[in-house]
Amino acid sequence: MKALRKMQPAQGAQLESVPIPEIGPNDVLVRVRAASICGTDLHIYSWDPWSASRIKPPLTFGHEFCGTVELLGSEVTSVKEGDFVSAEMHVNCGHCHQCRLGQPHICQNLKIIGIDLDGCFAEFVKIPASNIWKIQPGIPEHYAAILDPLGNAVHTVLSGPIAAQTVAVIGCGPIGLMAISVAKACGCGTLFATEVNPRRLALAKQMGADEAWSPAEVDVVKKVREATGGTGVDVLLEMSGNPKAIQQGFHMLRAGGRASLLGIPSQPVTFDLVADIIFKSATVYGIYGRKMFETWVQMTSLLKAGRLNLEPVFDLRLTLDHFGEAFASLQTGHAGKVLLYPKNHRP
Amino acid sequence: MKALRKMQPAQGAQLESVPIPEIGPNDVLVRVRAASICGTDLHIYSWDPWSASRIKPPLTFGHEFCGTVELLGSEVTSVKEGDFVSAEMHVNCGHCHQCRLGQPHICQNLKIIGIDLDGCFAEFVKIPASNIWKIQPGIPEHYAAILDPLGNAVHTVLSGPIAAQTVAVIGCGPIGLMAISVAKACGCGTLFATEVNPRRLALAKQMGADEAWSPAEVDVVKKVREATGGTGVDVLLEMSGNPKAIQQGFHMLRAGGRASLLGIPSQPVTFDLVADIIFKSATVYGIYGRKMFETWVQMTSLLKAGRLNLEPVFDLRLTLDHFGEAFASLQTGHAGKVLLYPKNHRP
Amino acid sequence: MKALRKMQPAQGAQLESVPIPEIGPNDVLVRVRAASICGTDLHIYSWDPWSASRIKPPLTFGHEFCGTVELLGSEVTSVKEGDFVSAEMHVNCGHCHQCRLGQPHICQNLKIIGIDLDGCFAEFVKIPASNIWKIQPGIPEHYAAILDPLGNAVHTVLSGPIAAQTVAVIGCGPIGLMAISVAKACGCGTLFATEVNPRRLALAKQMGADEAWSPAEVDVVKKVREATGGTGVDVLLEMSGNPKAIQQGFHMLRAGGRASLLGIPSQPVTFDLVADIIFKSATVYGIYGRKMFETWVQMTSLLKAGRLNLEPVFDLRLTLDHFGEAFASLQTGHAGKVLLYPKNHRP
Amino acid sequence: MKALRKMQPAQGAQLESVPIPEIGPNDVLVRVRAASICGTDLHIYSWDPWSASRIKPPLTFGHEFCGTVELLGSEVTSVKEGDFVSAEMHVNCGHCHQCRLGQPHICQNLKIIGIDLDGCFAEFVKIPASNIWKIQPGIPEHYAAILDPLGNAVHTVLSGPIAAQTVAVIGCGPIGLMAISVAKACGCGTLFATEVNPRRLALAKQMGADEAWSPAEVDVVKKVREATGGTGVDVLLEMSGNPKAIQQGFHMLRAGGRASLLGIPSQPVTFDLVADIIFKSATVYGIYGRKMFETWVQMTSLLKAGRLNLEPVFDLRLTLDHFGEAFASLQTGHAGKVLLYPKNHRP
Repeated sequence: MKALRKMQPAQGAQLESVPIPEIGPNDVLVRVRAASICGTDLHIYSWDPWSASRIKPPLTFGHEFCGTVELLGSEVTSVKEGDFVSAEMHVNCGHCHQCRLGQPHICQNLKIIGIDLDGCFAEFVKIPASNIWKIQPGIPEHYAAILDPLGNAVHTVLSGPIAAQTVAVIGCGPIGLMAISVAKACGCGTLFATEVNPRRLALAKQMGADEAWSPAEVDVVKKVREATGGTGVDVLLEMSGNPKAIQQGFHMLRAGGRASLLGIPSQPVTFDLVADIIFKSATVYGIYGRKMFETWVQMTSLLKAGRLNLEPVFDLRLTLDHFGEAFASLQTGHAGKVLLYPKNHRP
Repeated sequence: MKALRKMQPAQGAQLESVPIPEIGPNDVLVRVRAASICGTDLHIYSWDPWSASRIKPPLTFGHEFCGTVELLGSEVTSVKEGDFVSAEMHVNCGHCHQCRLGQPHICQNLKIIGIDLDGCFAEFVKIPASNIWKIQPGIPEHYAAILDPLGNAVHTVLSGPIAAQTVAVIGCGPIGLMAISVAKACGCGTLFATEVNPRRLALAKQMGADEAWSPAEVDVVKKVREATGGTGVDVLLEMSGNPKAIQQGFHMLRAGGRASLLGIPSQPVTFDLVADIIFKSATVYGIYGRKMFETWVQMTSLLKAGRLNLEPVFDLRLTLDHFGEAFASLQTGHAGKVLLYPKNHRP
Repeated sequence: MKALRKMQPAQGAQLESVPIPEIGPNDVLVRVRAASICGTDLHIYSWDPWSASRIKPPLTFGHEFCGTVELLGSEVTSVKEGDFVSAEMHVNCGHCHQCRLGQPHICQNLKIIGIDLDGCFAEFVKIPASNIWKIQPGIPEHYAAILDPLGNAVHTVLSGPIAAQTVAVIGCGPIGLMAISVAKACGCGTLFATEVNPRRLALAKQMGADEAWSPAEVDVVKKVREATGGTGVDVLLEMSGNPKAIQQGFHMLRAGGRASLLGIPSQPVTFDLVADIIFKSATVYGIYGRKMFETWVQMTSLLKAGRLNLEPVFDLRLTLDHFGEAFASLQTGHAGKVLLYPKNHRP
Repeated sequence: MKALRKMQPAQGAQLESVPIPEIGPNDVLVRVRAASICGTDLHIYSWDPWSASRIKPPLTFGHEFCGTVELLGSEVTSVKEGDFVSAEMHVNCGHCHQCRLGQPHICQNLKIIGIDLDGCFAEFVKIPASNIWKIQPGIPEHYAAILDPLGNAVHTVLSGPIAAQTVAVIGCGPIGLMAISVAKACGCGTLFATEVNPRRLALAKQMGADEAWSPAEVDVVKKVREATGGTGVDVLLEMSGNPKAIQQGFHMLRAGGRASLLGIPSQPVTFDLVADIIFKSATVYGIYGRKMFETWVQMTSLLKAGRLNLEPVFDLRLTLDHFGEAFASLQTGHAGKVLLYPKNHRP
């Protein structure tokens, strides 16, 4: 089969011919219909320091996708051939402290398909049966291909109360944009979005933000304070990973508020712990991955009920052999979600 | 001033001339603009056994209203004359175990204005300043008059997770209807409503129910089980107080589900504790009143964000001297919310 | 091997010679060191209506035990031969709604080893690897044999806040007694126990109850109300399954309190829903099994820290061939935990 | 009356003769029996930058005490003359967003008696009736004098689950020491304490810490990691306010753990947000003051049940005129709680 692989510890990737993965008794082989490119894939492609420390070439990367069940291991009973599926690509060990506590998403021995194991930028991908997620009828293919990042958004928004809460979304990349849609769908009060990229700022309004401001243009903390009678927002959803924006976010947060942090700063952040967390009695949640599989259940429910319009976050759709164009587009920093189709045709 | 009063321990009520209430240092005098009739008021009017045991005539009844601040006690600083307000009519003692725990809505020494103290079916009503709720600009007068029952609905819906949850609303009187609107606004999944009254069943659909069935016509438990792939609903909102409907509600609830009970059965209910709660690992919340004042904050947020269309629940609007017509309409069992205007004009 | 089996749909059981179970790739074969008899086993032995409807003879019963890993399936990596283990005997499907939500203990397709599948009253028992629980060093064998019912107690006590809460434990059979020990170890305030059996009442005090009263001798509701200044207890732990005792428990519960129900009434219970749950704003939890595996982690921590003295709950220790004596002792209704040893020797 | 007052914006304080405070209709006058010195009082005495920015001399300071009700305002019914009381010294406004949400301890308009208003280093102190806390019989006077800091400890420990959790207490000043006692009383698993002061380290063991290590002597992170099989602790209780110790605390915390932060760093802290909070999915609570009045209820319950031995945290007991000696002792950094008695006799 064809697979997009990192062959060397260096920038770039190659389309290779490799054997179809062999599966064990508890595995499923999935024929990929559509894959989606994550920011992490761009890091791997560009070979940044994190990638250099984590990725062991050769590796087929890619971890956002949907497809059709092709083959079942001998012990698998939960899916059948032909099922339309996606998958949680974080594979937990099942026996560490966190796994035993019902927190498999933060397993101490987590392996990620597409990072530690061969991923989905290929015609076929091998997945443990317990990680397969069956797609409910009515959910379109391109939505099914981005359940992984949508799950990040849903996990972040629903990590605390959201109904009737005022919200600030900091950073409006694809996950931030999806978080806006999810928060509004779940009954939040006034939602403020901040973002420096004007195109994304416009999309934020389109996704449902009541106000969308650029910190390059206005004092966003002051604006939010004014709009909330000086109180600040009940909920901070941090999606930027930008140290300065993180600080702005905390300055917007009311005393007693909730901050859910998903964005990943690339260096240590200096923090006024006293003013921003302690005296403020803030509750801060670090968010990693998706709850397995509560988040998937929530996503499915929201999608089935037609509550999420994600169309604005989609961008290019290309066949796998056009991967160069795809990554180039993402390197501009302006793109939405880019889909890759392993077959030589796309919808 | 004019006040609608229960003068005798018997059916009916009388419009009387009484002195304007005198207020203490921590009280506020409010000029009533619109009052709304609760089911409890109908019980008092009809003088049912509960009323006979609780109400001590003479009493001005009525506990749902909005109005304008007329006069302030000497210690009051939180409101000012002319403010447009409603009020939480449950007056807590401030020093019992529950009050100390932050659960004033279930104070051991609770007094209810309109039941234990003179209420709002009058030109003026006396309210402790700490029970006053200022109405945010943009919330219309007739909505402001029914925050008390809307609060019951919001308290019930938000007593547990609601986003992405499948829901059954049992009983579609005014509070059940408002609960449908609140649950949908807060991102619930499929919502099933049950109700025997055809007019209310139609309103349930209008308020946003995905399915609305009469237990007089179909096997509602079977319908819900089928529609949920045999699982049952995540959330049961019990608004009927009907013993049989309560049982149906629990039969619809999935294992591990949440039941919030607001409806008040008039006699003991026989319960299959094992199947319906214990083996099912259900979480059951008894719901009383509104959280003071978290529920009021939530209501205000939902209303300000324009998420609740409550127009379908409103019915007659009459001046106070037409109280006979008002109560007669409610005694049919078909009416929505009936508003009473103390002045001789109505909007 | 020898196994205690229900061979006919009738009272009694037989010690039979049967083949050692064959295991699949994800299973573990465990050599039983000590088993313990549950009330459910007594129902099966006595062949009550529940057993007649659920059990399909022939069946090796028994589901409380500890032992040593004898053999591993080909896919098993989480344990090794010789490990000292117990097991969660509730086997979940992994793919129903509840399993996906992280609630495997209320799986829709739950199978119970010792009820639906051959159990542990035998020399060997087959267990799925994911259900195996490794015993931490320092936990004695007889404690390791009763982790299943201890887990019921821990799950019930820790299903809500317990530190600094006043508590009523209703029913002081072995699980009720263990619940007393757990609640005290976790910092509860005054703990009241009720029980009609005088021997168990004495044990309740020994386990740490501050007060232990028999409803046959005193008005237990009145006693608890008096001792709490009229307020009632914060937490009700219902371990009796007796309809009248359940009602007493709810009458003891304060407004806003938490009731966790584990005891299983054998018939429907008539309930004053309004006074006992709705107006009281009670939170009621149905408790089933143990959380998989949060409860097991909690038990291990409490045992390792030496916080639980369970010695008083143990009673007879017999070899498996003396099963008749064991069940006869339990049929008196006075016994504590009875241990069975499959080998012809016991400690 | 005599009162210890800050008369000038400078180091030190003076014992002055001032009028007994006049009370309003909702106030209570309390005759002080014993006061206790907080670290904050030492800051005020020393006139550090925080004090210079916040305190407006002249001011009677002091906010930890117990005493006897001397006089009641006309509207006060919740206490009576002669009651033995302490008080929550954080006075909330009752009408801001947080007050309305049931979070009065983080009121936007909070005033603190002893910081913003005249405090308890005096013969009498004026307290709003709603802030008075009646002392239960059996709680000794010296314990009643330190309920304020004990409340900090209880609030911190009980801000999340503690039973069966492994715990690290970072910093063993008086509140850290009390937190150890509270955590052990509430059923925590292994408790690790860290502290540089050898005397406090010894007290930590005396209060119940299973291990107590000095970061000046051993690699405390490594020790905790080893002792927990590499997992880290479930709960971090940060009581030091030391930036380096805070980092150590987070490095000890397991993925999915809970960090409750009470210690107040005097400058911004640099934080590896990704490793310590985000990827770790940590839950972080800023802790301020005490919950009003849930924490007071919890304290009372723990004290009444005899679960807390706080004797080791007490140090000097002096009459108010020996304040110089008292503050000098605290300035050494080694002292425990120092009590001041306004009368010329002490127990």
